[in-house]
Amino acid sequence: MVLVSFQGERGAYSEAAAEKFFEKCTTLPLGTFADALDAAADGRAEYAILPVENSLEGSIGASYDLLHHTMLRVTGEIYHRIEHCLIGSGSLENTDTIYSHPQALGQCRKFIEQHNMKTIPTYDTAGSVKIVKGLDNNCASIASQKASAIYGVPIITRNIADNPNNHTRFLILAQSESSSTGSDKTSIIFSIRHEPGSLYRILAAFNESGINLTKIESRPTKTNAWEYNFYVDFEGHKDDPQIQKVLEQIERETTFIKVLGSYPAAG
Amino acid sequence: MVLVSFQGERGAYSEAAAEKFFEKCTTLPLGTFADALDAAADGRAEYAILPVENSLEGSIGASYDLLHHTMLRVTGEIYHRIEHCLIGSGSLENTDTIYSHPQALGQCRKFIEQHNMKTIPTYDTAGSVKIVKGLDNNCASIASQKASAIYGVPIITRNIADNPNNHTRFLILAQSESSSTGSDKTSIIFSIRHEPGSLYRILAAFNESGINLTKIESRPTKTNAWEYNFYVDFEGHKDDPQIQKVLEQIERETTFIKVLGSYPAAG
Repeated sequence: MVLVSFQGERGAYSEAAAEKFFEKCTTLPLGTFADALDAAADGRAEYAILPVENSLEGSIGASYDLLHHTMLRVTGEIYHRIEHCLIGSGSLENTDTIYSHPQALGQCRKFIEQHNMKTIPTYDTAGSVKIVKGLDNNCASIASQKASAIYGVPIITRNIADNPNNHTRFLILAQSESSSTGSDKTSIIFSIRHEPGSLYRILAAFNESGINLTKIESRPTKTNAWEYNFYVDFEGHKDDPQIQKVLEQIERETTFIKVLGSYPAAG
Repeated sequence: MVLVSFQGERGAYSEAAAEKFFEKCTTLPLGTFADALDAAADGRAEYAILPVENSLEGSIGASYDLLHHTMLRVTGEIYHRIEHCLIGSGSLENTDTIYSHPQALGQCRKFIEQHNMKTIPTYDTAGSVKIVKGLDNNCASIASQKASAIYGVPIITRNIADNPNNHTRFLILAQSESSSTGSDKTSIIFSIRHEPGSLYRILAAFNESGINLTKIESRPTKTNAWEYNFYVDFEGHKDDPQIQKVLEQIERETTFIKVLGSYPAAG
């Protein structure tokens, strides 16, 4: 059975996504995204799973920054529905303080405001269930149904998020590459020269080859203020001759380019 | 003297940026970004100041989401250097717990790890100085030099951020518009049809007119999973005939377009 590292405590959404992707796997909970990637890079785990984007909150900047530096390859993707539950030992009426990850607190803002609850940010959704287990029953947490089951703290209210359209996209990373399946995506990172039209000429190369971009994201380079790395996903496998030709073409327009990997496109 | 609303407690970086932009102004501290914009929309303040991007952390998603809905116009921009200080009543040696906004904690990660300190996330940098004032002197906060002066809590160590290249870009919003100065920027938001090449054709229109894009950012629409709004800044004023022509051209490619405003480009 494969071993998959993830950030968070047992019961985290990342763990559930890993179990859905691999069907059969064991999981290794670690403290940070960087720890999860390190475990796959040094062989303690065969795969790492990393959340990269949420349908409500947008891209997870810290994950994109790690992709820039990792030696691992992206070998898969999965979309996982996030269903936030209010979890605690008290009733809805006597709950006045909520512990959870800031992103989960943000996604349940209306529910929290309606019930006039105080929020306390924590490092992890599942970890917040562990925290409230030791507190008075006016304290509750926001996490998954699975975290409620693992830590034995009851669900007070299900589906408390403002917007039910709440999905997270996860990437699967490993030391090896995925071969072409005929329905693949490729993820790349590049920086461009500070010249008018640089980004346009790169998009033009994709457009002329009929390659469909599925995502474009810019992140500061951190070395030079207001210079950006672009994170682009497109349809096709990096071993396709047509994709190779476009990658060669855009290399001329970039100051840095890294192919993160090609992998079967999810649903 | 103009009145400018901002999110945060007195001594926040937003307040310092407002005071630099207007030279002479009074400021109105409010609890959330939405409150700050509301104050300018309902006439309690003449202007609101909103942080939109940091040179290390990237775009501030919550601010972009508010720009999508606001009736206010963008009338100015300013770049402000962020200099994080460790502020508390104890010495560096006996400080073991740090309170601050998660973004400030993230920007001082190396310093915090080196000194093996515990972190507690708060809603605001300046607010964290207020919090530690009432606590034991093993607790300190990360905030600006000004917040130290306002709340009378000493600076333990200056410039504790991992990377000194730490600037935040703020937008100034008001009910009225800025007229053309000859050196302006324009900010727009648009959504595109789910067709290959839509984004490419929009960038092509800018490129053919020789208009330089200074920023492109995508954010989930929240209504349909994995559909995006694009936030684009470019050089020029929306009243320039050439800009008007391009805006008409790209309107055909978009399902939604909003001109946030034109304003003098900062430095």
